[in-house]
Amino acid sequence: MVGSKPFNLSLYKLALKHTSVAEDTVNGLKISNERLEYLGDAILGAVVAEFLFNKFPFRDEGFLTETRSRMVNREALNQIAIKIGLSKIIEKEFKGKNLSAHKSIYGDTLEAIVGAVYLDRGYDFCKKFILKRIIIHFDVDGIITTTSNFKSKIIEWSQKENKDVDFQTLSVSGNPRFKEFHVHLLVEGEVIAEGKGSTKKKAEQDASKNACEILKLDI
Amino acid sequence: MVGSKPFNLSLYKLALKHTSVAEDTVNGLKISNERLEYLGDAILGAVVAEFLFNKFPFRDEGFLTETRSRMVNREALNQIAIKIGLSKIIEKEFKGKNLSAHKSIYGDTLEAIVGAVYLDRGYDFCKKFILKRIIIHFDVDGIITTTSNFKSKIIEWSQKENKDVDFQTLSVSGNPRFKEFHVHLLVEGEVIAEGKGSTKKKAEQDASKNACEILKLDI
Repeated sequence: MVGSKPFNLSLYKLALKHTSVAEDTVNGLKISNERLEYLGDAILGAVVAEFLFNKFPFRDEGFLTETRSRMVNREALNQIAIKIGLSKIIEKEFKGKNLSAHKSIYGDTLEAIVGAVYLDRGYDFCKKFILKRIIIHFDVDGIITTTSNFKSKIIEWSQKENKDVDFQTLSVSGNPRFKEFHVHLLVEGEVIAEGKGSTKKKAEQDASKNACEILKLDI
Repeated sequence: MVGSKPFNLSLYKLALKHTSVAEDTVNGLKISNERLEYLGDAILGAVVAEFLFNKFPFRDEGFLTETRSRMVNREALNQIAIKIGLSKIIEKEFKGKNLSAHKSIYGDTLEAIVGAVYLDRGYDFCKKFILKRIIIHFDVDGIITTTSNFKSKIIEWSQKENKDVDFQTLSVSGNPRFKEFHVHLLVEGEVIAEGKGSTKKKAEQDASKNACEILKLDI
């Protein structure tokens, strides 16, 4: 799965030891993959950050940050782990024990594997592994579509529900060169969400995002 | 400051362009350091994660995550930027403009510099730069002391204030191999905070941390 023979196989074995199947050692410490998961999470975050930085040279940091958090969230990583067949290996490791209580186990283990690859082979190899074996499975275009259009989602919703939606700029703070806009999003004249941003557009986008969450709109 | 001659000087110049001093280009885009800051934040996070992973081989991921977030927070990075003299360069860049409105500018710029170093020289060089020029300035022992002892802080407070503090285990969920403890922290018989964790100790630590925030105890 990693695409090359491991130098240190025990790292990969450890990566598969979820805390729920880990055994206590004599001194009461549990040997599990949680530390590898912590490390892998950080390395994955860095590689995904650079991937988006290069892929979208004209998008701002708000867009990049939001897209990244959608790619490295637990649910997205669970899906990838299933796609690449990691879930099969994990199920074997659990030897028939009930997995349903640990929904995040696939994504957790995927991160732990990234941590193991990083320790075993270093950053550059691990980066290639992440790009070729993980990021390739992301529907990045699908993700960015939903990242970009919270406001249009709200407008669409308001038309379907026949509700009146309005944005009000509450305040603009800062100085002429470094502004912060603070807006309210109103539905039928009532404030349901607020947002902030360095431009009016960004603040409205932020408020729309919060409104999508409050209204539980699928995005 | 980086410890070596840059290959691409313009990256470093860009890293110093805070959005408040950035000029609009003809097409309305602002050329600022925000994208570099986004990238640098991710790289810094990965290097700090590995640094702590290696430094504390017997500590769990909860401790590592908490310590990392204390190291890469805005205030800590502002302090480092001042220590290494980056603030002086930034002030020159601002040419006498008022900096006080942008308290986070030093830390932001430090992250942007990390992003520039990474793009200019690659991960391994950037990692050495972060270890030798940034992490070296952290009082890691001071940080971990406050990370570890929320509970003792609460006990200490209760003795000074002559208040009765108690922990109650509310519930233990999960299965025998993967438990989650849920505890309440009571002061004078009243619940003031709650906490969760995979052991009773961790749950109490978590509740104590929340209580420290609620009681506004300096930690």
